[in-house]
Amino acid sequence: MSQRLGAAAAIAMLPGWSQTPGRDAIAKTYRFADFNAAFAFMTRVALAAEKADHHPEWTNVYNRVDVVLTTHDAGGVTEKDIALARFMEAAAG
Amino acid sequence: MSQRLGAAAAIAMLPGWSQTPGRDAIAKTYRFADFNAAFAFMTRVALAAEKADHHPEWTNVYNRVDVVLTTHDAGGVTEKDIALARFMEAAAG
Amino acid sequence: MSQRLGAAAAIAMLPGWSQTPGRDAIAKTYRFADFNAAFAFMTRVALAAEKADHHPEWTNVYNRVDVVLTTHDAGGVTEKDIALARFMEAAAG
Amino acid sequence: MSQRLGAAAAIAMLPGWSQTPGRDAIAKTYRFADFNAAFAFMTRVALAAEKADHHPEWTNVYNRVDVVLTTHDAGGVTEKDIALARFMEAAAG
Repeated sequence: MSQRLGAAAAIAMLPGWSQTPGRDAIAKTYRFADFNAAFAFMTRVALAAEKADHHPEWTNVYNRVDVVLTTHDAGGVTEKDIALARFMEAAAG
Repeated sequence: MSQRLGAAAAIAMLPGWSQTPGRDAIAKTYRFADFNAAFAFMTRVALAAEKADHHPEWTNVYNRVDVVLTTHDAGGVTEKDIALARFMEAAAG
Repeated sequence: MSQRLGAAAAIAMLPGWSQTPGRDAIAKTYRFADFNAAFAFMTRVALAAEKADHHPEWTNVYNRVDVVLTTHDAGGVTEKDIALARFMEAAAG
Repeated sequence: MSQRLGAAAAIAMLPGWSQTPGRDAIAKTYRFADFNAAFAFMTRVALAAEKADHHPEWTNVYNRVDVVLTTHDAGGVTEKDIALARFMEAAAG
């Protein structure tokens, strides 16, 4: 099991991410040129998430993707969330 | 522009769908065996949505996909939403 | 039906593309950092192809995607192929 | 590293699969209702392949997907190929 680092420590390392109100979770909203680009981003993240067996909570409306990351079995934000957030940052280009 | 039919008329034709509180929109929650199956469903819907130029609002958490459909430029539920809902029903198997 | 322009005219407009031997078709090989990036490219192209109802012939081996484009009902390369090739160029970044 | 089992042993366990001429590899052609269904199958397989870090060689033309499986670092067909083939059989429904 991953150790809980907490949202405050995580967002200090992740520019543009914020803490989710009322939960030990981190969040970011990504905007793309259109649905095509947004869903391609989601596909990259889906492949990375499945490989790591660690999945986001996410909402998509056309060109926007709202992501929330936390590690359920650790009760908060862990290294796994930071790794997935960093992958998202790179994939969002 | 598509003509507004309204959520009540739509859900009468779509078993398992319900009206979204406070909006002229329709909603359904789909559950799959795992993330792999959920994201494959999302890919099918993404391809159909892009083809029809009519996109869902949707949230995914692991094996669950929550969908909301409405037609923004018509101010409510139209034939486009019913067509996409029927595609989802078929794709969800 | 789209009018046939032919592979020679098409590749004059598409740097890096070549004519497929023995067919009126155009081809290019794309290489990406890894499978994740290759499949994200394929997803972008799949969405664009489905929207245009015009699909590639393509082969993927890990980070490589080999594409062949032609318009079957026109017996050769048409504007549809040039449009899809241009989309691929943009999506491959 | 996985141990080589060989194509002959593999196809004995996998109905509908055949040996690729001139290589220790196994192959199958899948046909779907349309491109939408074919690409959804490819997405399922992509997610499983990335998770297992073992990828197919595959070609798609509209509703058809031709797959070849082998394990490059073992010089032939291994358990990894059989596992991915079985996943494909299940995903193709």
